[in-house]
Amino acid sequence: MTKIVEEFYDSLHCDLHRSLSAHHGAGLETLLDVLEDFHFSSEDLAFLQEQGFDQSFLAYLEDFSFKGTIHSAPEGDLIFPTRLTLQVEANIIEAQIIESLVLNILNFQSLIATKASRMRQVAGDRQLLDFGLRRAQGPGSFYASRAAIVGGFNSTSHVQAAKEWGLPVSGTMAHSYVQSFDDELKAFRHFVDEWPDRAVLLIDTYDTLKSGLPNAIQVAKEMEDKGQKLKGVRIDSGDLAYLSLKAREQLDQAGFSYVKIAASNQLDENVIKSLLDQGAPIDAFGVGTNLVVGRPDAALDGVYKLVSINDRPSIKVSENLEKMTLPGKKQVYRQLKAGLEDEFEGAEVVAFRKEDELSVMHHPFESFKSLELSTHELEPVFFKVMEDGKRTQKKRNVAEVSAFRVKQLKKLPNEFKRLENPHIYKVGLSENVYEERNKLYNEYKRRQR
Amino acid sequence: MTKIVEEFYDSLHCDLHRSLSAHHGAGLETLLDVLEDFHFSSEDLAFLQEQGFDQSFLAYLEDFSFKGTIHSAPEGDLIFPTRLTLQVEANIIEAQIIESLVLNILNFQSLIATKASRMRQVAGDRQLLDFGLRRAQGPGSFYASRAAIVGGFNSTSHVQAAKEWGLPVSGTMAHSYVQSFDDELKAFRHFVDEWPDRAVLLIDTYDTLKSGLPNAIQVAKEMEDKGQKLKGVRIDSGDLAYLSLKAREQLDQAGFSYVKIAASNQLDENVIKSLLDQGAPIDAFGVGTNLVVGRPDAALDGVYKLVSINDRPSIKVSENLEKMTLPGKKQVYRQLKAGLEDEFEGAEVVAFRKEDELSVMHHPFESFKSLELSTHELEPVFFKVMEDGKRTQKKRNVAEVSAFRVKQLKKLPNEFKRLENPHIYKVGLSENVYEERNKLYNEYKRRQR
Repeated sequence: MTKIVEEFYDSLHCDLHRSLSAHHGAGLETLLDVLEDFHFSSEDLAFLQEQGFDQSFLAYLEDFSFKGTIHSAPEGDLIFPTRLTLQVEANIIEAQIIESLVLNILNFQSLIATKASRMRQVAGDRQLLDFGLRRAQGPGSFYASRAAIVGGFNSTSHVQAAKEWGLPVSGTMAHSYVQSFDDELKAFRHFVDEWPDRAVLLIDTYDTLKSGLPNAIQVAKEMEDKGQKLKGVRIDSGDLAYLSLKAREQLDQAGFSYVKIAASNQLDENVIKSLLDQGAPIDAFGVGTNLVVGRPDAALDGVYKLVSINDRPSIKVSENLEKMTLPGKKQVYRQLKAGLEDEFEGAEVVAFRKEDELSVMHHPFESFKSLELSTHELEPVFFKVMEDGKRTQKKRNVAEVSAFRVKQLKKLPNEFKRLENPHIYKVGLSENVYEERNKLYNEYKRRQR
Repeated sequence: MTKIVEEFYDSLHCDLHRSLSAHHGAGLETLLDVLEDFHFSSEDLAFLQEQGFDQSFLAYLEDFSFKGTIHSAPEGDLIFPTRLTLQVEANIIEAQIIESLVLNILNFQSLIATKASRMRQVAGDRQLLDFGLRRAQGPGSFYASRAAIVGGFNSTSHVQAAKEWGLPVSGTMAHSYVQSFDDELKAFRHFVDEWPDRAVLLIDTYDTLKSGLPNAIQVAKEMEDKGQKLKGVRIDSGDLAYLSLKAREQLDQAGFSYVKIAASNQLDENVIKSLLDQGAPIDAFGVGTNLVVGRPDAALDGVYKLVSINDRPSIKVSENLEKMTLPGKKQVYRQLKAGLEDEFEGAEVVAFRKEDELSVMHHPFESFKSLELSTHELEPVFFKVMEDGKRTQKKRNVAEVSAFRVKQLKKLPNEFKRLENPHIYKVGLSENVYEERNKLYNEYKRRQR
């Protein structure tokens, strides 16, 4: 059967992330899990038969498993728009049958991990809590909560996702809990009795400063009498900067400087940054909708394109030349700062997998632009992660992926991390890829005539 | 145990749908399915135990099932911002444990069904195909494709969702399919051999007018020689208005006026409307990202609020008075045009469940505004859909729900259906709800002093 290679990359339709040179790739471990277990049940086959597929194809699918090979950057690594992040080599049926799966998993998790990472960047070492389940896109919430932790969140309130992916769980009380008691003080007392070591009291059900805060201080006093310490209070409405400053002041005056302040309500990286710029003494942010649906984009426009057929490199020419694909089996090399192993220079070159001479990289479209490289200052970005349908590397759990993300992000100079107008991280082509791409394009133009 | 009532409604944070008076409620049948089967597995309980929940609560959860009662509008009915769409009566644990589930399912499916319905409105009776799986929010795609059909789409390319929900399937060929052949004509011939009765040829892989269209016409001729008819062609890039006009012209000139034209590429209701306003002869629209993630909002801000405790009506007062909840067990009545059963007047009144005298409705906040009603021109919107945790009505499949949506939308006068600045559909309060809300608010203010 025809063997093909397809690759995944962000096609750059996405406004938010166009302004952001660095994304985080996420979802690779999920994808490998799904591929290792990919098959058609007898119910699936019966349904496909109803759709008119013929018997020989259904018989093929009966024993189907994915037996391809995948090269990719490890999950959590930095990825850059227009640069491939994963290559699939397989027979044509396998490679095409998994297309929607690859796109669905990598697009969404990369979007959310990137969004989470932006919030982590502005939040410093404050707590970031995923509160998004109620507004998430249905069962998309399972991946959203996973990707939030990959991207730097501390915990999630999505208990089932936490169980599925081994994530830290956290949550606070609800307004309806408070309302279900005759008064707020009773509700607070009951809650801290249940959870003396971790209660975070929601203080805005009636009136934050006139009712919630005084009641929380009262309960904190009663807890001290029992040798307990109130963990925190949460504000979920009103002006979070003003209210958190007032709350901090009154808690401190009452001798409860250890009581933390959590805030929530339509937060995103811009609101968090603004709150912190105003000196809001918030220790933990609960983020919901804007995180889990990845607003404002809500989707990453990653594509999955054919780049080789039976070892013959192939390109796809678009009306928009910048969307032309790059041919062949490729590797990506990342440039390190001269003499340093722990700092990235800010450039990557897309090369064929077995090139050993990489002394120059070309701008993909501006023919006069090129950059000299030193091979010993380059490190490979891609690794073989699956062969014959089996993982070739130990599966990483979410904590390991998140730690890798931190490590990689640390190596990226700050000018590439700005939320607005970051410095442009260069993605170029090796001499050979550049020549091959141009040759195939010229052949294409000749055929058009 | 304390018995409470909680209700779901759209809290109106959502920009797109703020401009849209009518939404479609969706997800009810999914929610009822999930509730009928809701339980905690031994693995779930073990995980909760690790989180520190105590034995007596875990023992309670071991036998847990939802035994509450639910009143709701039928799925697919019109819903209006700030007006409740569903009420849950249950003991406090049951009612609160299902909170995230209610919100997650109804928020997302209502968003997508509404988005789909907007596209259906501009598309007339042309085909609308869901192509969104690749950019959907992970497994959120399952609900997205269901809700797309509820909202008026004809079919989905998400085969597994189609199997799950009994949806019509459709799809066309991929660029990589075309690329995997030596030339486009061979690819087309091979494809129509496989699917002579339903092939839609993708004509923009190389050049729509110079290559794809002439090749499709060639294949259409060859098919006629065999007594077959080419179903259609699809354009996925470039100026869809210009290219579809050219394609229609050339197909007609060649005698293939029966060959349909499908278009795709970043479509939404505005682009579809613009194409049709320009006279683009497009018979079918394949819509992906903007449909399945519900851009630009990507989430509906529905909330779930406590309105009664042990048969005592309760309110929650927000800093923003417009977000104050309405107390008690309620029914919604929709006003019909005088003397007509099949046209809505444009007003709904929120009343207590057993009110029989509804001669006036009050504006929720502007005390001088009220509207006279005639009880015989009102029809109830809510029905009991679950009692003691069991459905009380026959489950409706997606086709039935979609048909109900069509029926209800037909009764809504056109001025309420404009995509921009629709006429305002009035939602008011019965005399009793108005009085009770005001009484509870005054009590609340007294306690604050």
